[in-house]
Amino acid sequence: MPGIGPRTAQRLALHLLRQPEIKIRSFADALLAAHDQVGQCEKCFHLSAESVCEICRNTHRDKRILCVIADSRDLIALERTREYKGLYFVLGGLISPMDGIGPEFLQIPNLIERVDKDEIKEVILALTPSVEGDTTSLYIAKLLKPFTKVSRIAYGLPVGSELEYADEVTLTRALEGRQTIN
Amino acid sequence: MPGIGPRTAQRLALHLLRQPEIKIRSFADALLAAHDQVGQCEKCFHLSAESVCEICRNTHRDKRILCVIADSRDLIALERTREYKGLYFVLGGLISPMDGIGPEFLQIPNLIERVDKDEIKEVILALTPSVEGDTTSLYIAKLLKPFTKVSRIAYGLPVGSELEYADEVTLTRALEGRQTIN
Repeated sequence: MPGIGPRTAQRLALHLLRQPEIKIRSFADALLAAHDQVGQCEKCFHLSAESVCEICRNTHRDKRILCVIADSRDLIALERTREYKGLYFVLGGLISPMDGIGPEFLQIPNLIERVDKDEIKEVILALTPSVEGDTTSLYIAKLLKPFTKVSRIAYGLPVGSELEYADEVTLTRALEGRQTIN
Repeated sequence: MPGIGPRTAQRLALHLLRQPEIKIRSFADALLAAHDQVGQCEKCFHLSAESVCEICRNTHRDKRILCVIADSRDLIALERTREYKGLYFVLGGLISPMDGIGPEFLQIPNLIERVDKDEIKEVILALTPSVEGDTTSLYIAKLLKPFTKVSRIAYGLPVGSELEYADEVTLTRALEGRQTIN
């Protein structure tokens, strides 16, 4: 399991062996239940125990703005900001020809259908600033342009950082992406 | 001296003591000469051995764009990108009421005079994304608005980073600063 080395694994295993049987049984049942019940939201492909997830069902959110992310972890990170009030769409990965991942492995056809059907007025691409992220952003932007406005999140200096220690690529992006102050 | 702890200091001192007198003398002379000769460029306030620095004298640079930075270290960081072709203006610090640094301690009056006199067509504020940086940016933007276009570098995800590990404030800035893809 990720982040669990041999020593931690041994500590956890010994801890579990010391528990009473009833606790172990309920833990095992919980694992099976999670595996059984947690699927994907049929609208946004986020993890969900129901056919449509809590975020997609929330009537207080702006249904005309769609934020596209690579996976559920990114959605959770954006939710932590408590600033974004639109809906999401989880792609399931990024285009990566090096790893043999083409657009056909991602939810891109479903995204286009969703944007068209739900009359989305803005799609915000929130993909990582990497070769794969940029490739995927450009690919999606090209496909969605006939239907809606497409924007991407800003790449630049992270808050609290020092200009002096920023790498050249980030500084270049920050200069290119400069914004007029109104 | 910054970054030099007691052990490193001792190692350096012992190394210097082992050198022949002529080497020590030329080192001492170099220090004195640097202190004597390196002053500030009278146009941009960057460190310079001449009255006007090499960057300000370079005729291949765009004299109508001015990038404002807090100090010479930030200028050097931006020069490393090899992307920026305009001129610079070194403020000499950031406004920080907590530390008793008001606008009067910085080169702000000289900046306004320079923008007006040299008919600058864009001022790019490249200050750190912090309370002091934001305060200084807003203060300068307000003063310069009647004279020229004012922009600031992008704040957002640094290149090569993961959305998942970005802090909430950076993610919020990245969402707010999103840009339409053309």
